[in-house]
Amino acid sequence: MTTTAERTRVAIVGGGPAGLLLSILLTRDGVDHVVLESRSHDEIEHTHRAGILEAGSVKVLTDAGLDRVLREGDRHDGIDLRFGGETHRIDLAGLAGRSVWLYPQTEVFKDLAGHARGTGADVRWEAQVTEILDAGTTLPGVRYRTADGATHELRADLLVGADGSRSVCRHTLPEDVRRSFSHEYPYAWFGVIVEAPRSASELVYTASEHGFALVSQRTETHQRLYFQCDPVEDPAAWTDEQIWAELQRRVAGPDGFRLTEGPVREKTVLRFRSAVVEPVRHGRMLLAGDAAHTVPPTGAKGLNLALADVVVLHDVLSGWFARGTTAGADDVLDEYGRRASRRVWRAQHFSAWMSRMLHSHPGESGFEARCRIAELRALAESEAGRRFIAEGYTGWGEILARPAGATRRRPPQRG
Amino acid sequence: MTTTAERTRVAIVGGGPAGLLLSILLTRDGVDHVVLESRSHDEIEHTHRAGILEAGSVKVLTDAGLDRVLREGDRHDGIDLRFGGETHRIDLAGLAGRSVWLYPQTEVFKDLAGHARGTGADVRWEAQVTEILDAGTTLPGVRYRTADGATHELRADLLVGADGSRSVCRHTLPEDVRRSFSHEYPYAWFGVIVEAPRSASELVYTASEHGFALVSQRTETHQRLYFQCDPVEDPAAWTDEQIWAELQRRVAGPDGFRLTEGPVREKTVLRFRSAVVEPVRHGRMLLAGDAAHTVPPTGAKGLNLALADVVVLHDVLSGWFARGTTAGADDVLDEYGRRASRRVWRAQHFSAWMSRMLHSHPGESGFEARCRIAELRALAESEAGRRFIAEGYTGWGEILARPAGATRRRPPQRG
Repeated sequence: MTTTAERTRVAIVGGGPAGLLLSILLTRDGVDHVVLESRSHDEIEHTHRAGILEAGSVKVLTDAGLDRVLREGDRHDGIDLRFGGETHRIDLAGLAGRSVWLYPQTEVFKDLAGHARGTGADVRWEAQVTEILDAGTTLPGVRYRTADGATHELRADLLVGADGSRSVCRHTLPEDVRRSFSHEYPYAWFGVIVEAPRSASELVYTASEHGFALVSQRTETHQRLYFQCDPVEDPAAWTDEQIWAELQRRVAGPDGFRLTEGPVREKTVLRFRSAVVEPVRHGRMLLAGDAAHTVPPTGAKGLNLALADVVVLHDVLSGWFARGTTAGADDVLDEYGRRASRRVWRAQHFSAWMSRMLHSHPGESGFEARCRIAELRALAESEAGRRFIAEGYTGWGEILARPAGATRRRPPQRG
Repeated sequence: MTTTAERTRVAIVGGGPAGLLLSILLTRDGVDHVVLESRSHDEIEHTHRAGILEAGSVKVLTDAGLDRVLREGDRHDGIDLRFGGETHRIDLAGLAGRSVWLYPQTEVFKDLAGHARGTGADVRWEAQVTEILDAGTTLPGVRYRTADGATHELRADLLVGADGSRSVCRHTLPEDVRRSFSHEYPYAWFGVIVEAPRSASELVYTASEHGFALVSQRTETHQRLYFQCDPVEDPAAWTDEQIWAELQRRVAGPDGFRLTEGPVREKTVLRFRSAVVEPVRHGRMLLAGDAAHTVPPTGAKGLNLALADVVVLHDVLSGWFARGTTAGADDVLDEYGRRASRRVWRAQHFSAWMSRMLHSHPGESGFEARCRIAELRALAESEAGRRFIAEGYTGWGEILARPAGATRRRPPQRG
């Protein structure tokens, strides 16, 4: 085992969308940095992951010079909420003034990784971080192992943990300051890719008495479909016929809506979890994306949160670099957590709320089931309700740009 | 024990707001009817019950010629939501185009009972219904006992059970068709009337880390205040000092808001329960108000639902009387349940939602507590969110006047 010491300004642990976007922004600023990713480029590129990009996320990508999403992504101006066998459209563009783009996370990765490669950014694939060094000091570092088995050490002014939900960096938060918030769900999504034409022009979020289903899309010839299942469901145990029967009975209704069937090409079970860790800074180690928070897939907030984190983090780092990175200036780094937290908790609520409202809950009472449908109906039948959903689904836009508490009055007026 | 048989067109069990309003509407139509109420007039008149009337309920009263609410009620154009020590105003009038009136249920009762007396309606106080007779037939009846101990029998074309949450009539729904939905809450309200000036010009709904509090009003010199407590709390065990300390710490915040203190004049614990029974018709017996459904006090929907039930019921009965009350025409009576049900479930959701969002839940996780506050913040910081609350709080107005499913599209469009 050999150990070589090395120095950079920012060491980014994780070469997913968050880490790569930060790399692109730092390259643009001329800030020396290194990205360390445990997986190979090919492995990530060949892991299919779905994605819905908020308008703000699309702007982040295009601002970084990545505009393939505009040409190859599918802009969606609305979604359908289906319950009681009826479909109610949420006109995202009309209500929130923003659309979303169906553009898989895998494609976002390809765009970001290609851009980083093109600018000569120092992204090291198959570099497995095994240890975080001196996280709470002004010269943190990592020890990592490369594919050839060699061990290396990298020191930096700043360490960014963008290493996903199983983050190694997160574990360096001292126990006495770390606060973990989490929620487990008694259901998961059975996801399939089928070879068939689209069944609907927009996404259909369905709450039925048999459970949730989501009719999503992929290409002209292949579609993504999901249905709520037990978290321990075994995808291999399901035949195509069983899958189609389950999907069809969930979307069925008096309007006669049916899915266009075809061979099932992929089957997988997506687990649900909500989690937040605070604080996101320890000394000069900062967490971003899934390393700091996880959301269930309902609402499609995960990737968007990661990109939004990086935009705020980059903004805060720019100020920190500009003022000089002496230890006395480190308090400015807390600004990142303060600013990101508002969006993180809003997205956590949105994701948990959409999940709770749309899924059948094992053991829920008749009252609870009726109230869920009453809530969907109240929202769908009110322009304000539809707009509140549309604002959340498309990422809040200017609402989150206003200062927190802008609607506050203080104190209550005397009578 | 003597039994005298008697006959009327409509026998109304219950002389609360629902029963009395129906009596007034039937008197106006010239339909012969009798109201039977187990309590005395004085007992009800001296039971203080708070009340917030939706604009629609105020219209029901004024349409019936009862306009004291407009002179003596307090119109409220907004409410305050307070959380995280900040106050956010919900501009009911500006957002929903409607206000609410603070006007105690006791006063509504006085108005209705006075009007019924003035028109010579047959309202029999201290008439305790002991048995429902032949509910499923075309000539149902009741057996009841008067204050003198005598037992009487009353037969009618139609029986209306407006006899509150402990309804005798409800029990005649056959078990094989009855569906009961209910929800119990792990908290209650500790309600006080204090002798003090108003602390705020509008109602303040407060979610604090110490639990919920509601700053309400009564008169210039006496105020109603509530704070979340254990359902088995004993009001007598609390001193004035303890009550004020508990209230003050719940409304406290960096804006320095404090309640104006004074002697506590009344103390009581209000239990929470949500319940719905279906169907609301069995043969010629129909249920209205609390006999058919109960809501927790958050959202103040109980009295409003009862009055709305009666308006729909009266409309359906008018059609039934007009077509002739032969047994073959009885199916038209099911129209009542169909039409009332939409508002009932919407109000059930609203009441349960407001309760869940504003109260601390024993045993809730940190994630759940943070999500509740994130939800309040998301709603308060969005014009659409505030309007969605305002629509619900003021009773939905024209939204419920539109046919159900008016926003529906069918089926989802093909891609």
